[in-house]
Amino acid sequence: MRVLEQTLAAILPVDRDAAALAEQRLNSLTKPPASLGHLEEIVRRYAAIRRDGSANKGRGALAVFVADHGIAEEGVSAFPKAVTLEMLRNIASGGAAISVLARRFGYELHVVDVGVEPDSSAEPFAGVTYRRIGPGTRNFLHDTAMTRDEALRAIEVGIDLAREFAASGVTLIGIGEMGIANSTSAAAVMSAVSGISPARLTGRGTGLDDAGVAHKIDVIERALAHHREVRGDGLAILGALGGFEIAAMAGVCLGGAAANVPVVVDGFIATAAAMAANAISPGLTEHLFFSHRSAEGGHRETLEFLRARPLLDLDMRLGEGSAAALAMSIIESALDLFHQMATFQSANVSGKIR
Amino acid sequence: MRVLEQTLAAILPVDRDAAALAEQRLNSLTKPPASLGHLEEIVRRYAAIRRDGSANKGRGALAVFVADHGIAEEGVSAFPKAVTLEMLRNIASGGAAISVLARRFGYELHVVDVGVEPDSSAEPFAGVTYRRIGPGTRNFLHDTAMTRDEALRAIEVGIDLAREFAASGVTLIGIGEMGIANSTSAAAVMSAVSGISPARLTGRGTGLDDAGVAHKIDVIERALAHHREVRGDGLAILGALGGFEIAAMAGVCLGGAAANVPVVVDGFIATAAAMAANAISPGLTEHLFFSHRSAEGGHRETLEFLRARPLLDLDMRLGEGSAAALAMSIIESALDLFHQMATFQSANVSGKIR
Repeated sequence: MRVLEQTLAAILPVDRDAAALAEQRLNSLTKPPASLGHLEEIVRRYAAIRRDGSANKGRGALAVFVADHGIAEEGVSAFPKAVTLEMLRNIASGGAAISVLARRFGYELHVVDVGVEPDSSAEPFAGVTYRRIGPGTRNFLHDTAMTRDEALRAIEVGIDLAREFAASGVTLIGIGEMGIANSTSAAAVMSAVSGISPARLTGRGTGLDDAGVAHKIDVIERALAHHREVRGDGLAILGALGGFEIAAMAGVCLGGAAANVPVVVDGFIATAAAMAANAISPGLTEHLFFSHRSAEGGHRETLEFLRARPLLDLDMRLGEGSAAALAMSIIESALDLFHQMATFQSANVSGKIR
Repeated sequence: MRVLEQTLAAILPVDRDAAALAEQRLNSLTKPPASLGHLEEIVRRYAAIRRDGSANKGRGALAVFVADHGIAEEGVSAFPKAVTLEMLRNIASGGAAISVLARRFGYELHVVDVGVEPDSSAEPFAGVTYRRIGPGTRNFLHDTAMTRDEALRAIEVGIDLAREFAASGVTLIGIGEMGIANSTSAAAVMSAVSGISPARLTGRGTGLDDAGVAHKIDVIERALAHHREVRGDGLAILGALGGFEIAAMAGVCLGGAAANVPVVVDGFIATAAAMAANAISPGLTEHLFFSHRSAEGGHRETLEFLRARPLLDLDMRLGEGSAAALAMSIIESALDLFHQMATFQSANVSGKIR
């Protein structure tokens, strides 16, 4: 608990003076006022989160957490559980979508096994960091997914990584995940945090048909009834309904905020982590960027609940941090414009006349 | 006329077989089917336009056309006409938004003076290509903006550049522009092509207040009444109401299509060029990508008119090709995923079970 408590105590409100300073420079650049639209808001928010009116840009890094889910036993995923380990290796080997995008944009990619069911840490796979909490969560239809201690340890994995990133000059962190059945866990967490009904939140995941979705909603409704005592308590919600990777991502959100490093939330599953983190530390979303509006389930509703404006809307629903990587490139583009554009004065360009 | 006629004759429908081939590979990649969402449609469309089921990727290049507008005399812009030449130089010097983004993404940037009012070609500015049609267009409230011959020559500048790009291995072309008062010309062209009223299309441009917008709408309505005979004729519309840079961008759209190179349309002004080109060669929009939904005027309506799905929605309204550059990076990301992701077979990842 100490790490989490320290982290929560270190989280400050974002720095509006830094945003105002950045705004001043934005208005001096050779463009009609505000014509870069949301890119300007991105720069102001980055400055405010970094507490740096100069919006200096460091390295970008991606953290992808991988874990299994006991709830997969209920037949809520279109793919078999074995895929979690297979994809852990595919991501680390460079063949997954996030591997391609991290390479394309030059982002460090940290792939963390926080609890894949088959324990492969005795023969470590190149490129994988092992911070296993256990061999997957328990089936939360009948039990809590994790103990309170496991939830805290998973959150700490994320906090630790955010601290390491911040200490090594990373100024933008993307979070993503992989874990068969984790859209079920995510929808349950989102519903418990927001009160939005599972029917409005639950989607096809990796490709369920209508009957599969109906079954998935039923499983989530029953699980929420079973765990009804957790409502309103972010940590208890993560423990009862979450996944190790979801808790770890929540940890990155909290650790990033404590270190003044903006965290770029990927899609549906990562948003569940952000919602839990925001329940643990109200107002936390000020420190986050939301990459995109996912095509999965009720992501639109959860973004509205969080009053978050996603950067992209490309009907993606892959996870892994894939949309976070694209969004980080948009954020870095905005920062490059901020730093590299000429001013009206430096370029001798005339100003407004009417 | 010969160049335009040859170009129009060379434009084929896009190749649906190539799209189907690309689709096959997309379905073999290690991701849930269709989970890359619109990125998959981008790959299919790129393959279809390129007539290449392998969707091979070459270089990206940006063409930014700069010209002045006689209609600026009517007080329709918040900035003085002098800014056109000043920004031509700023773009070429590396200080404009598009200069920053082209550098960031490694896109060749071609800055073309097609008719800035002060003729600076006698002392050429480094980085500017001079293909001047004249010292700006005429005031289209009282006259046609260009003669038919001028319109054809401006279109040919664009066709020539698209051909040069294609011959040198460019497989993705972004188009952008700069020209004080050109949002007035663009709204007039869009209204003449689509029949959408100027009141629904006209925006603040570089920053007009409400009275300025009302005056701008009035100017466009009077101009459309004056030139009512051009409706339905893309070339005549460009001549009567267009700008040299708008005609040149229309030429790139046509020349790109003839050379099987997708053209990425920037924002409001570039969309006017695409609409005129589509009027000249119906169905042309199949060969184009639309970068973003601009915050300028009725860009949303024109995209709906064209049934175009923009890639980005960031409230940008700068022009110069700035959103085209960002969208090109999204398109290239989609192509990298297509080429570099592992398949279920190559990565030994299990397939769907339900």
